[in-house]
Amino acid sequence: MKNTQGVEAVFVETDVNVRYAETDQMGIVYYANYLVWFEVGRVAWCKAKGFRYADMESTDGRCLVVAEASCRYKSPAHFEDDIVVRTALSRATDRVIRYRYEIRKKSDYELLATGETAHVVTDRDHRPSRLPDFYRGYFSLPPRKTLRTGASTDP
Amino acid sequence: MKNTQGVEAVFVETDVNVRYAETDQMGIVYYANYLVWFEVGRVAWCKAKGFRYADMESTDGRCLVVAEASCRYKSPAHFEDDIVVRTALSRATDRVIRYRYEIRKKSDYELLATGETAHVVTDRDHRPSRLPDFYRGYFSLPPRKTLRTGASTDP
Amino acid sequence: MKNTQGVEAVFVETDVNVRYAETDQMGIVYYANYLVWFEVGRVAWCKAKGFRYADMESTDGRCLVVAEASCRYKSPAHFEDDIVVRTALSRATDRVIRYRYEIRKKSDYELLATGETAHVVTDRDHRPSRLPDFYRGYFSLPPRKTLRTGASTDP
Amino acid sequence: MKNTQGVEAVFVETDVNVRYAETDQMGIVYYANYLVWFEVGRVAWCKAKGFRYADMESTDGRCLVVAEASCRYKSPAHFEDDIVVRTALSRATDRVIRYRYEIRKKSDYELLATGETAHVVTDRDHRPSRLPDFYRGYFSLPPRKTLRTGASTDP
Repeated sequence: MKNTQGVEAVFVETDVNVRYAETDQMGIVYYANYLVWFEVGRVAWCKAKGFRYADMESTDGRCLVVAEASCRYKSPAHFEDDIVVRTALSRATDRVIRYRYEIRKKSDYELLATGETAHVVTDRDHRPSRLPDFYRGYFSLPPRKTLRTGASTDP
Repeated sequence: MKNTQGVEAVFVETDVNVRYAETDQMGIVYYANYLVWFEVGRVAWCKAKGFRYADMESTDGRCLVVAEASCRYKSPAHFEDDIVVRTALSRATDRVIRYRYEIRKKSDYELLATGETAHVVTDRDHRPSRLPDFYRGYFSLPPRKTLRTGASTDP
Repeated sequence: MKNTQGVEAVFVETDVNVRYAETDQMGIVYYANYLVWFEVGRVAWCKAKGFRYADMESTDGRCLVVAEASCRYKSPAHFEDDIVVRTALSRATDRVIRYRYEIRKKSDYELLATGETAHVVTDRDHRPSRLPDFYRGYFSLPPRKTLRTGASTDP
Repeated sequence: MKNTQGVEAVFVETDVNVRYAETDQMGIVYYANYLVWFEVGRVAWCKAKGFRYADMESTDGRCLVVAEASCRYKSPAHFEDDIVVRTALSRATDRVIRYRYEIRKKSDYELLATGETAHVVTDRDHRPSRLPDFYRGYFSLPPRKTLRTGASTDP
């Protein structure tokens, strides 16, 4: 399946087990912690694509600074639940990356939450930058050579 | 000022000072922590209206379970920054409450982030419920007597 | 190896991968998060012994409320590090449970931190209580029958 | 009152209001969050002494890396409780700083927890270092001139 941006909506899955620290006095996972799980999902997505996000920051000097985040909570997660975090690239340029997420219960695959994040590519000093060419393939972007010789819609 | 739902968009302000624990290795506040600040804002909003959210849960047996949350990050917050969390009711029925937020730097009032949350009113067992009549005024809802005798758009 | 209380110092191991959320602006894991990992270790310890801590609370109505916690930090953990959390029971009565922990780097087994926690067994209302007999074996405590017929040093 | 190191045990007080995010499913504040409050206390202590800890890191290139932390939990804190965090320097050299803490309920001054932390002075790269001379007074250390001309027990 291809979405309108031509990016394959392929979910990468990773597991988390709900920590006591993540619950609140309502007896369910505190809502901000889903954004932490999204980040766990992004890190797993990077690994699945073949690179470590840690290296992108430390070696290649690029940060993905969060510009937008949203979450819809459908059913609560509880302490010790086995959770599947599903992460897919939903749109990418070499300046802005968008992901979407599904949080599911591992036992019956019940959908607990969905979410989206948008990230701006910056340099170490948090100034807008571009993905190094080297990373374009990871984000399903064509090599820059193509862009130079052909028509480009890349901003 | 009244918005389209007839609810006054009056912001209640409360201050937070950025904690070291809230920063991440990018040297800025980790994105999920803005949702924690939104919650600090809601608690301050309740106090400003005349009730404690803690009592709503423990004494009156109603929870405001988060159904949606979103945040747009415009400029980062840093350790020891004095932050103003501004919270306004954006829409309310006795079943669903919506808030919006502004996160500003106290020194120059720079807008760092905006956000929204939606909450479902539930009972202690997390089943959908209604606000106790007693609380209607806090959320700018007319007393139920009016609803019974007149036309109501309340779902 | 038996310690002075006759409890075997057997470590149960579980893995965590350092989350971005767990780092702070020093570029290392924020110190309070080691206590979260200790809790992850305790939950893994319970599973290894044959029960879920979640059931102990929800089904059997006993909580292990933390009374003391300490940690010595020897070398920092970094984002995306694979970490081994090692948890051992260090002392147990049916009223007070003590654990100790080692936090090690998975790659070279370097010791990053050590810690200890003490927990008081309480009922659901946080009043001091005792472990249900059913749980004594999990904590290497002799069955109560023995205690009734013989001399007991159990408080 | 002077302790054996000749450092005045003067507590600096700062207030926190318990956040929903800080509670867990036991309905009380999760134990690791007391260490976050200790850090809030240290930052307040620095301010009371006349400097910002943020400047010590960013301008003067010194970090206080946590080497040890401990906490004894006496009575639980609950959502919306007003809490007083009391912080005192318990011992200081220009290489190692020790603090102790009291967590009290604001309403009746009940002691909820006590704690201690030890910090190693490092440079930006986390290598052991010394406090800049400029900071000695803040930590009740005599100026270095005195040390040069007289007997010193400073390591």
